[in-house]
This record gives sequence, structure tokens and C-alpha cells, in this order.
Amino acid sequence: MKPENLKSLLDRQPQGHALLQEFYASPEIFERDIERIHLRRWLCVGHESRVPEPGDWFRFDIAEESVLIVRGKDGALRALLNVCRHRGSRICHEEEGNARALVCPYHAWTYDLNGELRGARHTDADFDLSRYSLKQIHLRVLEGLVFVCFADDPPKLDEVERALLGSLTHYGWKNARIAHRERYPVKGNWKLVTENYQECYHCTPSHPEFSRHHATSKPDEEVEELRTEARKRAQAMGIEILEVETWPQGLSPGQEGIDCSYDATYPGSLTGSEDGAPLAPLMGNFTDYDGGFSYVELGPASFYLAYPDHGLVYLFVPRGPQETDMEVLWLVEGDAREGVDYQKDSLIWMWHVTSIADKRIIEDNQQGVNSRYYEPGPYTEMEVLSRKFSEWYLREIAPGSKG
Amino acid sequence: MKPENLKSLLDRQPQGHALLQEFYASPEIFERDIERIHLRRWLCVGHESRVPEPGDWFRFDIAEESVLIVRGKDGALRALLNVCRHRGSRICHEEEGNARALVCPYHAWTYDLNGELRGARHTDADFDLSRYSLKQIHLRVLEGLVFVCFADDPPKLDEVERALLGSLTHYGWKNARIAHRERYPVKGNWKLVTENYQECYHCTPSHPEFSRHHATSKPDEEVEELRTEARKRAQAMGIEILEVETWPQGLSPGQEGIDCSYDATYPGSLTGSEDGAPLAPLMGNFTDYDGGFSYVELGPASFYLAYPDHGLVYLFVPRGPQETDMEVLWLVEGDAREGVDYQKDSLIWMWHVTSIADKRIIEDNQQGVNSRYYEPGPYTEMEVLSRKFSEWYLREIAPGSKG
Amino acid sequence: MKPENLKSLLDRQPQGHALLQEFYASPEIFERDIERIHLRRWLCVGHESRVPEPGDWFRFDIAEESVLIVRGKDGALRALLNVCRHRGSRICHEEEGNARALVCPYHAWTYDLNGELRGARHTDADFDLSRYSLKQIHLRVLEGLVFVCFADDPPKLDEVERALLGSLTHYGWKNARIAHRERYPVKGNWKLVTENYQECYHCTPSHPEFSRHHATSKPDEEVEELRTEARKRAQAMGIEILEVETWPQGLSPGQEGIDCSYDATYPGSLTGSEDGAPLAPLMGNFTDYDGGFSYVELGPASFYLAYPDHGLVYLFVPRGPQETDMEVLWLVEGDAREGVDYQKDSLIWMWHVTSIADKRIIEDNQQGVNSRYYEPGPYTEMEVLSRKFSEWYLREIAPGSKG
Repeated sequence: MKPENLKSLLDRQPQGHALLQEFYASPEIFERDIERIHLRRWLCVGHESRVPEPGDWFRFDIAEESVLIVRGKDGALRALLNVCRHRGSRICHEEEGNARALVCPYHAWTYDLNGELRGARHTDADFDLSRYSLKQIHLRVLEGLVFVCFADDPPKLDEVERALLGSLTHYGWKNARIAHRERYPVKGNWKLVTENYQECYHCTPSHPEFSRHHATSKPDEEVEELRTEARKRAQAMGIEILEVETWPQGLSPGQEGIDCSYDATYPGSLTGSEDGAPLAPLMGNFTDYDGGFSYVELGPASFYLAYPDHGLVYLFVPRGPQETDMEVLWLVEGDAREGVDYQKDSLIWMWHVTSIADKRIIEDNQQGVNSRYYEPGPYTEMEVLSRKFSEWYLREIAPGSKG
Repeated sequence: MKPENLKSLLDRQPQGHALLQEFYASPEIFERDIERIHLRRWLCVGHESRVPEPGDWFRFDIAEESVLIVRGKDGALRALLNVCRHRGSRICHEEEGNARALVCPYHAWTYDLNGELRGARHTDADFDLSRYSLKQIHLRVLEGLVFVCFADDPPKLDEVERALLGSLTHYGWKNARIAHRERYPVKGNWKLVTENYQECYHCTPSHPEFSRHHATSKPDEEVEELRTEARKRAQAMGIEILEVETWPQGLSPGQEGIDCSYDATYPGSLTGSEDGAPLAPLMGNFTDYDGGFSYVELGPASFYLAYPDHGLVYLFVPRGPQETDMEVLWLVEGDAREGVDYQKDSLIWMWHVTSIADKRIIEDNQQGVNSRYYEPGPYTEMEVLSRKFSEWYLREIAPGSKG
Repeated sequence: MKPENLKSLLDRQPQGHALLQEFYASPEIFERDIERIHLRRWLCVGHESRVPEPGDWFRFDIAEESVLIVRGKDGALRALLNVCRHRGSRICHEEEGNARALVCPYHAWTYDLNGELRGARHTDADFDLSRYSLKQIHLRVLEGLVFVCFADDPPKLDEVERALLGSLTHYGWKNARIAHRERYPVKGNWKLVTENYQECYHCTPSHPEFSRHHATSKPDEEVEELRTEARKRAQAMGIEILEVETWPQGLSPGQEGIDCSYDATYPGSLTGSEDGAPLAPLMGNFTDYDGGFSYVELGPASFYLAYPDHGLVYLFVPRGPQETDMEVLWLVEGDAREGVDYQKDSLIWMWHVTSIADKRIIEDNQQGVNSRYYEPGPYTEMEVLSRKFSEWYLREIAPGSKG
């Protein structure tokens, strides 16, 4: 998109309203989103319990890109681009695996787990292997969550780290393990997916299962008391949960953004289960249910939910202008045994039905937005985070923005 | 498409020949077709018997647009855009239904059957509901047929109304009912579909089933006598069927176009059935079979066939540059009972086999037209209506045309 | 693609390295490839044994084009465009057949087997049929292989003819017959398919089945002796196999390019079978197995393999920027009887498993090449033909090239 066209589009955008059609539909805007946002910010790609052993790896694909998250012999994780330095083949075809070395299936160029080229068959003696290491991007692990960043100079993570320490540490995610992982492909632009996740104005009509147990679907003032009580119960266990609000842009310049908030379940509902009853062994510092849960937003498109007995990681991964994968991870305490300490079907029930509903809602939203007669309407009070996100987004993609 | 490119394309178009490839294949031309033709003219969307009761509604989708045809509490039909005024979601996800109010499934903004916003949850007291009615487009019902127009200032319908009165009224379509509805998705540009329907030069090779019973597949001069005899039989019943020829552009400026013509079945064939035998109770003013049927063309892409005992509505709905839905409605007398007064399989046989054949023909036509080596050939005498349509079309999309 | 963009792209292409992403991915480059290469050069479309009798025909489709290869009443083959001169319909919908005349299924315009229009129903007496013959393109048959060329002035075939005479004639392909034909659709650009076929650097890692029997997967110097021995055995049968190296551009200007080379199987492997054992009756001048096979490359995208007892024809047919069909023909001696003289499953085993592996490899290559972070790597010594092909390709599509 030419800067003058983008500028005139930004000028037409009404304040405090949903975005104009082009932002949700145009392939050129999508291209810009990827370059200005996803390839510049920290992206959550999962939980490190997926790759516990040296040689373990999994793929993370976004738009046209594919990254290998590899546990090295030194036990460290690295993020290597899944593109052979010879003729460009994908090196890993599967979704995950374990390997002693990364061997390109095409011509067998062989890289070690650090991405360094160790062998290229039938090349001259003077062939300089060191010039053809796999490209590596930044990787950080925080509270067990794995983040990568494509940018040469990634945003700083100090604020994020402090916030996670004050929030997720209580839930013991560092020692958690993935009990289930599922991908929900959505025919909708990634921003419709993010905005959907950002507000609970839609919870009552769209998510009766969720709304039965979580106070989130009510306006703040109506549920303040419930939250205060839950907070007191947590404090009684010695748990002081930090609330932070710097998402999506970070508090100081150059920082990745994060929000951590604390919310209540309804009396009688202890966790995000079908009937509100416990699902799995308590995690981290929890010795009882507090009647609350934490909600975290980090970077452009990842969201976490922490209950005392299980956790949820939501990754929104753009695939195309009107295609996004919602990847959902269910976390349990590291030693919890499936079928013994928890039942998988029960564990995933709430967020499976909720994700399926969100998929339908977002796809209907995309279709309506594609109409010539669509006109952005006003965000309401309960959609304040979606509004905040949209405003941030518009600044990020503006010509001349430093991103 | 830039005006200068369109102009040079129009200059290259040979007179009296099929259209150049670009008109059938280019996405930019398709976009222009929708804007200059479909969104400016009256579009038939079906028969009002589909929504007899207050609260009944059905969706009509064309290109990226979706319209709800809703029967109000006052018994009137309205055409409301299926786009929520809040964040743009489709309000109705299904194809049809009955509702007391139109409630957006996303955030439950609630519209009455007239499209007025009656409730928006958790908004401030000063939120002005009246600013967010569903957008409404023009709607007219003529002889039971429902028409909508997206234009602010639609073409006039006086000529159309007079013509339908003189033609379809005899067949009692006002009180008819839909016995069956079917959609045939065709991988072809909408103009190939229209041109196909416009000429019976292809009937002998492509539609042996149809050609066995209908005189349409012969040049006019060979079947004139049959028509005269059928007309006399109709007159003997007091039925004088009007013939009109103003399709597609209307006789006077600003009028929607319509053609009504009368044609004969072969001796022994009473209606459009597999064996020529009656299919259903006689309709309207018919007390016997006249050995004839009426054929009507109205607006850019709707066609009707009226036999004494049943009727056909053909809607050609553009979906993309090379995708068109043929939607076909079979009408019977309003009180006719399926399985008693008519057999559905027999009723739909003729135009089901014919539609399936047309789908194949048009798709082969599109593929050939996509060749670099395609060169438009001459329309023959029996394709005079297709030629007339093409010439009208070229004028409509020309730069500077008033449409 | 504008010439200045293409020029800057060509300037960025590093020498001796795989092509830049755009050459493998851009729709505009694909369009140019078709026009500058495929529609200007001789294309192999199959073997004439597919259409032995007058009236026999088959379709050959490439990009948006469709050609009918028709055996005339005079026994000659002709290549007629599968586009009716009336309104552009495909004339032949099926893949192959036998016909007395070519009748367009739409309006029954009827062409004889030479493509001349013989009848157009209901046209005026002065309608000039001779103006509407099917368009015909060049066709040649060499050693039973059928070639067509879309260009008005095709490249000359003298060098190709001489080379085939010195190479394939020994294998008796002129009297061969197609035992099996299969299409492998590949989600990859045609040049990735060609480059894959051009080098055996990938054979050891990717094709263990092939590498077990063919010396091709080793560097030349290691297998020179095996080739010399095979050549001697052939000479002992009076067979002197020519080697030629002018692919892809031809030796003298205006000639189509061809390479013919001779290679060895390993001791104990007589032919391209699962276990190296014979598959079918010996062909042509062969009275015994020589322990060798011939490999021919001709035109932009066709490749042949001749064993003493069977042959392979590989056609790489572009369908879209990232879609190519590999069409494979297995040839046997003309009188060989399936189930008696050869078993079809055994016959096709080797090149069926190899083609399936190539499909996967090429698709992984395309995906990697689509990454923003893909950087062309160096061709190695064993990929010299791929490199030669790329260099030729870049010259052919350069602005100002005569093609």
C-alpha cells in the first residue's frame, strides 16, 4: 500500500469506532501488519514443556514463515528459521520431533542443534560451512512461556518479566506441562480475533457456558465485590497477585506491552469447568481455590488465563488477510497424570466450546465487515480494551511510525 | 480498471460478436459489473410465499453483500442489510427463519422487524439508538415476486408492472407458492450464464429433454403457426397474453427493462414435464392447457417461465468473477399439496436436468474463453437476445454512462 | 511485471546460486515464463501410440491453454486449439476419445478432423465457414514422441532430430506403446520441478530406491568406469549411443535444445526395477541388457529415460505460479502384453515411488522459498545442470531477449 493511500485511509478512520473495512480485509494491509507488528514484536510460540529433552523441537509457522524451536545439547532453547541455506527447502516437514541434528531432507545438508552447518555432501574442500548456518532469531523463556522475535533489535522485556513474576509465578507455570493443544482455524483477520478476545461484552449472548461461572461478563462495578473477596482469599494463602496495564504498547518506550488482571468466578464456581468444580491438582503456590483467576495479555496476539488448577495459553497466528489460527494450550501441574489426576475431556470442555463459538462469531464478523455497506460502529464501555488495541494498532502501522 | 484501459478495451470489442475475454474473466470488470449493474438495478430475490408470516425472513446474498427480506408485524416486506451497526457482524447466519426481533449473535444488539435498533446492552443513557438502524434498501413486490434495489434512486417500475399485469397475472403467481428451490453453483461469469439463458440456439444439441416439448429450439418462422394456435386456445379461455420487448434497458429512460414473450409447446406436450403430461393443478385463470407458456426477462439477471400448471423463477447471482449461482424456484398453485396434487420429483425433472446441462456448458464456455487464443465469434440469428444483452451491457459499463 | 522491476530483480540475482524468491513465487513472473518460454518452445505432449487410429484424440492442457492432438483421416496428427470459434467453448470436455468430427457441445458447430468448420446450424447461406477453422499450432513427431509449438515461427528441430536418432532410436521408441500414464500434481513452481529433475545430488538422501540401482547418484568420477563397461556391452550389440549436450538452448541459434547422456546401472541391476531384474521384453535394437540407460532432456520441461526394456517420459506442465503437473508415461515394446509380457505394478514401481518423493521434496522447497528470509544458496558441483538451466532461464526472460 502506497503511503499516501494508507494516510488517506487513516484519515477516514472514525475515532472510537471499529476499524474500517480495509484494515480487516486488504491483502496489502495484512502484509504491512505482519511486517510492522508480528515481525517486530515478541511472539509467544508455546510452553517449553513441549520440548523438554535435548534434540526436541517443534515448528511455529506464521504467515509465510516457519521457525524451529530447538532444545540444544546444552539444554538451551534456540529459534532457527526452517529454511535450508542451500536451496531453501523446509528442513522439518513435521510439526515436532526429536533429532540429533537437523538434516535437510532434500540434499542432506546437516546442521547441529545450534543451527551451524556441519556437513554439505560433495562440496569442495574450500567450501566455507560457517557461512551457511541456519538463520537464528531471538528467543526468551519467561515462566515457562517461549517467546521469539524476528526483529534485529527486539523490544525490551523488563516490564513483562516483572509483571509475569508478580502474576503468573503464583500459578507455577514454570513447572507446568501441556495437557492438550488444539488449533482452531478461523476465516477472519487476526485483528477481529484479538478484538474478540479483548472484550467480554459478547460473553453473555455468545458464551453462556463461560458466563455462568466467570464474573467477566458483567460490567466492572457490578462484580467489584466478588473480586475483592477472591483477592482476600488469595492473600490468606500468601498470594498477592499483581495487576498491570501496559498492553499493547508497554509503559516506557521500547518495552513490550503486557496487561495482567485479576477476576472472580461466581460463588460456587472454583475454576473454568463445565460445573465450576475442580479439574486438576492445584498449581504453584495455591493451597486452595481463591474464587479468582488471572488474565494476561502479552505482545500483539497472545493471551493467558490462569486458574488455581489449570492454565490456558491462547496464540493468535495470522495465516492470511482473512485467515487466522487460534492455537490453544491447556496447562496442568507438571506431575499431574492424565486419567488419574485429571480427565482431559473435562479439562478442555469450557475453552473448547468457547473457542468454537468464537470461531463462528469472528467469521460472521468478517463476512459483515466485507460488505460495501459496513460502517464502523462505536466501541462501548465494555469494549474499552478492543478500542485501546485498535488505537495502538493504527499508530503502529502509520507511515513514519517507529513500530 | 482505469477509465483509459476500459475505453481501449471497449474500442477493441468487435460488433455483433461475443464479448472479449476480459469482460468474462477480469476481477476489475467484475467489480465494475456489480457496481454499475447489480447494485443499480432491480434484482429479483424470490417469491413472497417464502415468508408468509410476520417475523419470517430469508437471506439474499450477492457478491459480498447480504440482504434480509423480512416480513414486518405490519405484514409488509422490508429489505434490511445483514450487517450489524455495531461492529459489522452478520446478524442472520442461517438462510431463513422466523424471529420476533433481529438480534445480532455477537453482542446482542437488538433490532425490530423494521430494522430499528431497540436495545444495545450496557450503553450509556444518552446513547442514541435511532442513529443505528439497520440500513434498508428498496423493495417491491409484483405478482408475488420480490425485488430489491441497492440504489438510492432506483429505476422506475411502471413498464415492468404493466407488462407483468398483462403477462403473469393470468398464471396466478400472486397466489402461488414455492414447491422447490435449488441452487446450482456455476464456475462461470454471470454474463455467460445470462447469455446462455438468452438463446435457444444451443437447445437442440444441449437440451434434448427440453427440445422434445418446446418449440423454442426452432427458428421463429418454423414454429409461428404453433404459437398462433396456442394463442387462440388461450383466448378461448379469455386469456390474452401480452408480449413486450424492452429488456434489458426499458422503453423510456429511467425504467427497468422487461421482455414478456409467448411460446408454444409441441402438439401432445401440455407442460414442461418429462413426457409433456400435466404436473400440477392449473393456476390463475387457466381452465385448460393452451399448448403455450410465457417467458419473461426482468432486470439484469432474472428470468421466469410460466406454464398453465407451474412456474419457474431463475435468478443468476454473481459470486465472483468466474462464479455464479443459478437459483431456481419452482412455483405451484398456492393450495396445491405435495404428494397429492403434484409429485415433486416429476415437477422439477425438466428444469433440473436442463440446469445441470447448462452448468456444464457454461463452465466449458468459461474455460475456453480464458484461453489467450480465444477470439469472439459472431452471434447468429438465433442468438439475437444474447447479442442485444451484450450491446446493452457494453453501454452500461462504459465510462461516463449514467447506468 | 514492468521491465524496470524485472531488470532490478535480475540485477539482484546472485551468480551460481538458486533463483531469488520472486522467480519461484510471483504470478507476474509466471505469466512471463509461459509467454517467453512455454508458448515459444517445442513442448512434448506425449507419445503417438496414445492415438493410433483416425479420429483418436487427446487433450493437452497447459496454464490456461488446451490443445487437441487429433489423428486425421489421412493418418497425420494435428494440434488444434480446444476453443470453439463461435463463442469460445471447450470443444472436448473429456481427456481423450475417438470422433468422426469435432462437434462443439454448446451449439453443435462441427469441425472435421483437420479443424475446418463444416457446419454451423441456422446460419445464413452467405456465412463463410472457411473463416472459422479451429486454430492450429505446429506439431512434429520424432521417434514416436509428439511435440507441439504455439509460436508462429518455432525453433528448428534439426539438432534435436539428429540427437534422438543417435540416442533413442536404439531403444525402439518409435514402435513403443504407453503401458501406463499418471499425473502427479505438485504445489510448486515449474522451475523447482525442473531443477529437481536436473540434479542427482538429492538422490542419495531422497531416493534410496533409485540410488540402489543407478550410478547417477554418485559424482561422475566415481562411476566413470561402470559407464565405460556398459558402453562396451552396448557396442558389442552394435549399439553406439550418442551423447549430446545442448540443453536447454540449442547449439546453433534458433535450434531447440537437447541433452542426451548415457549412464550406468550398478552391477547386478539390469533396469529401473525394484530389485534390478528385467521388467518387460527388450526394445529396439537391444538383444541383451547393457547395464546402462539413456537420459534425454528436450525443450523447457520434458525428460526421457530409456532402459533396454522400458522407457519413461516426464512432462512438467505449469498450471499456476505454484502449481505444476508432473505427467509420467511408461513405455514398453509395442507388442508387449500386460499381465503376460510385463506386470504393470512392477513396471511402474521405481518411478512411482520416486515421483511421489519428488512431489514432497519440491513442495517443501516451495514453502521454504516463500519465506522472507530465504536467501538463494550456491549450486554445488553435482547440480551443474540445474545451474545451467537457471542461467539460461534468466537470459530467456530478460527484457529485450529474443527468446
